Amino acid sequence: MSNLNEEALRLHRERQGKIEVIGTLPLNNGNDLAIAYTPGVAGPCMEIARDKNNAYQYTMKGKTIAILTNGTAVLGLGNIGPEAGLPVIEGKALLLKTFGNVDAMPICLNTTDPDEIIRTIKTIAPGFGGIHLEDIKAPECFYIEDQLKEELDIPVYHDDQHGTAIAVLAGLYNALKITDKKIEEAEILINGAGASGIAVAKLLTVAGAKNIVLCDLKGAIVEGDLSINEPQQKIAKTTNRSLEKGELRDLIKGKDVFIGVSTGNVLDREMVSTMNKDSIVFALANPQPEILPREAKAAGARITATGRSDFPNQINNVLVFPGIFKGALKVRAKDICDEMKIAAAKAIAELISKEELNENYIVPNVFDKRVSDAVAGAVMSIAREIGLARAI
Amino acid sequence: MSNLNEEALRLHRERQGKIEVIGTLPLNNGNDLAIAYTPGVAGPCMEIARDKNNAYQYTMKGKTIAILTNGTAVLGLGNIGPEAGLPVIEGKALLLKTFGNVDAMPICLNTTDPDEIIRTIKTIAPGFGGIHLEDIKAPECFYIEDQLKEELDIPVYHDDQHGTAIAVLAGLYNALKITDKKIEEAEILINGAGASGIAVAKLLTVAGAKNIVLCDLKGAIVEGDLSINEPQQKIAKTTNRSLEKGELRDLIKGKDVFIGVSTGNVLDREMVSTMNKDSIVFALANPQPEILPREAKAAGARITATGRSDFPNQINNVLVFPGIFKGALKVRAKDICDEMKIAAAKAIAELISKEELNENYIVPNVFDKRVSDAVAGAVMSIAREIGLARAI
Repeated sequence: MSNLNEEALRLHRERQGKIEVIGTLPLNNGNDLAIAYTPGVAGPCMEIARDKNNAYQYTMKGKTIAILTNGTAVLGLGNIGPEAGLPVIEGKALLLKTFGNVDAMPICLNTTDPDEIIRTIKTIAPGFGGIHLEDIKAPECFYIEDQLKEELDIPVYHDDQHGTAIAVLAGLYNALKITDKKIEEAEILINGAGASGIAVAKLLTVAGAKNIVLCDLKGAIVEGDLSINEPQQKIAKTTNRSLEKGELRDLIKGKDVFIGVSTGNVLDREMVSTMNKDSIVFALANPQPEILPREAKAAGARITATGRSDFPNQINNVLVFPGIFKGALKVRAKDICDEMKIAAAKAIAELISKEELNENYIVPNVFDKRVSDAVAGAVMSIAREIGLARAI
Repeated sequence: MSNLNEEALRLHRERQGKIEVIGTLPLNNGNDLAIAYTPGVAGPCMEIARDKNNAYQYTMKGKTIAILTNGTAVLGLGNIGPEAGLPVIEGKALLLKTFGNVDAMPICLNTTDPDEIIRTIKTIAPGFGGIHLEDIKAPECFYIEDQLKEELDIPVYHDDQHGTAIAVLAGLYNALKITDKKIEEAEILINGAGASGIAVAKLLTVAGAKNIVLCDLKGAIVEGDLSINEPQQKIAKTTNRSLEKGELRDLIKGKDVFIGVSTGNVLDREMVSTMNKDSIVFALANPQPEILPREAKAAGARITATGRSDFPNQINNVLVFPGIFKGALKVRAKDICDEMKIAAAKAIAELISKEELNENYIVPNVFDKRVSDAVAGAVMSIAREIGLARAI
């Protein structure tokens, strides 16, 4: 770990971050200059002035998104501010390029005011084909994303919410196949009621799940509890219909699925042992999972997954976001909708054939080169189907 | 021209603009991922959380600027909006990379409200080592730049103003050498009292010029005239001390230097013939100069310059801005100050030796590879000298 840290610091320093902006036209002589700059540049300018949708074909807009953070909820580090959040969004930009061939420009936002964030992103949006929000703390992130989706005509996507939710659903589809359970009937407990937990609950509901309970350190999220925040109160209306109360230890009893998007080591063997037969334990806290896979298995879990690369079944957002934006840009999508998210999760799950599928292989490896095209294809076909595509 | 236009449209379409964001770290295996992303990314994040100046060394901030426009004053095209202004700032990003090895992220601003522009740029500033403003119309551009310079601790530079002013001053230094005139004594007329004209007047004043008259289509800029805009009223207090009135045709009489940053074909032979002996005519309107060089020469001008590459003495911003930001980023400058601009102009002028200097060679060619390093060196040494450098 200390070696990795040293190495990471050294490489970040040597390269001054992880991305570079390069030119794609030559500039060797007056003719090159006349084409890329004045007077040739007037051509594309006028085409776009005529119809601003032409920006998709004549500029970076058709292949570039903005990836933005204010550094208020950086994974494992909390509220460290916009500058300190930059290495994460640069990392995401690197992943978007490497896995999705999507150009992403990292932008740090020096504000914690949700309305200021909305106003700023709306102001800088015209040159981008999509908006990727990252590491913005809950509950503000929900309001910010909702408003931006309403007001912008390009996709807005908060990865902490939807990347996690789609990756979880992909893994869950396959885990349910193996355990021969149905999503509609599965008893599901989600530990962590922030951005990720709530997004997972929403997407699983859209996917058909009917028995979801969310909880956090203070216990179950229950309708009528006015001490919880607004997004939690809202999700409480569509989840936990039996109004279960109590702590994680109580709530986990009789569940088929545990999804942890919280903090490490909150689950013990005894708790897992009270789950239903053939239980599914996704312990996604990073770097320390809610429970280690071997402990969960020893306590009766049939399928385990983590966010880590050193255990089987790594459920990681990187399976999702490069393909989401690759597809969205290709059809010049106006929005990322729930149907796309479901289709993306199915596409990821279906990359594993019936013959290959087993307890230790429920999601493709993050380096599986088929993943981003599968996700992109799902996004594109839904976009075309429901009229969210500007281009075919 | 039509062929060039076709070619420009085709290339912009084929490449989807002119720049690309690429990754600079490999992502071939779990170890790569652990270094560039989680958990390794926590190292740089924490170093920056400890001291946000560390962003210069661990992130793109140390080598990247934002280049912003709202498309309200695009060269030769006017107010065409943010999307339509994007090809120009992408072009500038290409030039910054090619000539200065500076990474630039083009950002379109969907607003014409100066305070909204200021607020937006302040909000997105933390991840950038500098701010390059482009094609924002006068008089708002002055207020926007002034406020941002005051409130941000990174360089803010409006190229339409300062790029033009520095390039003009560089050419003027050498033209005055040839004609054996002194800047302090030269009678200078600037035609065009927008962003460029006012910036040229300001910088020439700092450089020692004492006899400057500005004019525009409505005539001379004179102190006390309340019909002119605020920045014009302000510059009227330090220029045109003889309170000259009248139109271009009247004002040009007895001048040593004409600097046109206005529109094509406003100058004729007769007007040039009324200038002093050994007159200097910089007809920088683009693509059509205020007067063609051969016409000006026929009317008695000794030295002519244009903004075009197909005549000698191309006075073009591209001589300036790549080096300005190259130098500013290298020393992590806090500001671009007037002393740097003067030093940059001198550095450009001095690239031409006494032996080489002649009427048709007063500024280096835009492809002269020495230029950006000379400008960068000037910026860096002034930054160190007057305490505007964060790094040595």
